[in-house]
Amino acid sequence: MIQKEQLIKCHKRIAPHIHKTPVLTSRIINEITGTSVFFKCENFQRMGAFKMRGATNAIMQLTEQERARGVVTHSSGNFAQALSLAAKSLGVKAFIVMPSNAPQVKKDAVKGYGGQIIECEPTLAERQRNADAIVQKEGATFVHSSNDLNVILGQGTAGKELLEIQPELDYVFSPVGGGGLIAGTALAAHFFGHHCKVIGGEPFEVDDAYRSLQSGRIESNARTNTVADGLKTQLGDINFPIIQQHVDKIIRVTETEIIAAMRLLWERMKLVTEASSAVALAALIKEREHFVEKKVGIILSGGNVDLGKLPF
Amino acid sequence: MIQKEQLIKCHKRIAPHIHKTPVLTSRIINEITGTSVFFKCENFQRMGAFKMRGATNAIMQLTEQERARGVVTHSSGNFAQALSLAAKSLGVKAFIVMPSNAPQVKKDAVKGYGGQIIECEPTLAERQRNADAIVQKEGATFVHSSNDLNVILGQGTAGKELLEIQPELDYVFSPVGGGGLIAGTALAAHFFGHHCKVIGGEPFEVDDAYRSLQSGRIESNARTNTVADGLKTQLGDINFPIIQQHVDKIIRVTETEIIAAMRLLWERMKLVTEASSAVALAALIKEREHFVEKKVGIILSGGNVDLGKLPF
Repeated sequence: MIQKEQLIKCHKRIAPHIHKTPVLTSRIINEITGTSVFFKCENFQRMGAFKMRGATNAIMQLTEQERARGVVTHSSGNFAQALSLAAKSLGVKAFIVMPSNAPQVKKDAVKGYGGQIIECEPTLAERQRNADAIVQKEGATFVHSSNDLNVILGQGTAGKELLEIQPELDYVFSPVGGGGLIAGTALAAHFFGHHCKVIGGEPFEVDDAYRSLQSGRIESNARTNTVADGLKTQLGDINFPIIQQHVDKIIRVTETEIIAAMRLLWERMKLVTEASSAVALAALIKEREHFVEKKVGIILSGGNVDLGKLPF
Repeated sequence: MIQKEQLIKCHKRIAPHIHKTPVLTSRIINEITGTSVFFKCENFQRMGAFKMRGATNAIMQLTEQERARGVVTHSSGNFAQALSLAAKSLGVKAFIVMPSNAPQVKKDAVKGYGGQIIECEPTLAERQRNADAIVQKEGATFVHSSNDLNVILGQGTAGKELLEIQPELDYVFSPVGGGGLIAGTALAAHFFGHHCKVIGGEPFEVDDAYRSLQSGRIESNARTNTVADGLKTQLGDINFPIIQQHVDKIIRVTETEIIAAMRLLWERMKLVTEASSAVALAALIKEREHFVEKKVGIILSGGNVDLGKLPF
């Protein structure tokens, strides 16, 4: 049973190392949705995404001995950068197992944040095998990007900060990928909201969380053909029970709806945000008739995009 | 002689109709420049640019009779949209003379904000002739986008707000186009700064303001081949004397430097900003050795860009 006090302590712990990101609003998006929307701008977070929160909390929970031996993860996305930067800020080594076909720009970003890259064959089995080898060889602690309670609590601090500014939110929308952000957000809403419901946005193309909630067991994706590249991962045994207990529903959206929502965020709010962030807004727009005149929070998860490969 | 009280009154007048835009900072840009930079984010202003301020002030200074007959301007850029939206918000008609070759997206934006478009041949003479005709026929008041004291005072409220948050700025950087923003910023720095100097950023390709300050008379541009499409216009007889008196210097930058600065704003600060906004940052980066350990403000003028035509 996770306690409210755990999330409060986590927030105090990581606060000096993260940005308290702003909450922005948009007249035009309020008009389009017929509701009052409050965007928690984690695209302005350090290294450009909420993952900085969970990575920082996970490292800060290690003993001095564990810190001395470093941390390791496998990721080709934001968590690789987040763990690298959080580790560097805290004076800890970070080993990052990346698939050999990861874009050079992502490898450069990890190196820029001080992470030590171990390349491997681009399969999940090989990624895990290489990470296990680092754990064996270096004594480093493995940190999973989403299926780790300390990571989940860290991600939940974004929702906590949002509810501190807007305590009367009726709903919070979050994108669903590996499940860390939405599980953390659900805990924050449960502990700090006043009957605040949590809703996930998920691409039809990778709707494993939607299907998992229906079947009651963790489903996976046969293919992952979505522009929201942060959402291709699947749920885990630590975050899934939290999601089952505290998430109201998941709304699925098409690729066209994601890109249209992303365009709104860029053109109307002037925010550089990832397609994954736009998924939550797309979900609200899709079912807006259910949220008229409500107060809705949306977690804009991050802003790390390749400007040379925009979908519009 | 323009008085401090005029700028104070202007700000009070327009405050209910504009956004008090946030001031953001970036650790990485501070590292790159070796200085503390405070970005005044007018890309978050209503309709996406500082021009909303001046347009609002100009209309609010009209008599009831003048308001009843509407306003007119010629512009193919942000001021067309700003005057349209400001007029709509204040219940006034806006006639916008636009060159027939203006992009459809800009015409649509003006229409979206309620402006009434009059198309004309794409020459400055034809634009002025058509605007004059509207003045004659409708009795509308002509509002120039930059060479109008009420517009200049309105634009100056961005710098005033910035100095309210950061009163000890040593410098404020502004892009230089038609001269309205930098003249207003210079007045704000003069009235509200503590020895705060104002520096302009200008593309080499349209360096009329740089040359005007050297020659002591208003120069024009033989060609206007710059990515910073908001800066193609030239100074006027109302803003030029203010600029001569209160602007410390103008730093010219290349197209490559503008695009690199724009990329920094997008990739590192996650801000959708126009190339014109990036010109001011590019100027600071170019001569950063002169500003080490100073406190520098930068006016990010706007964020209205065509996402289909990005320079990177």
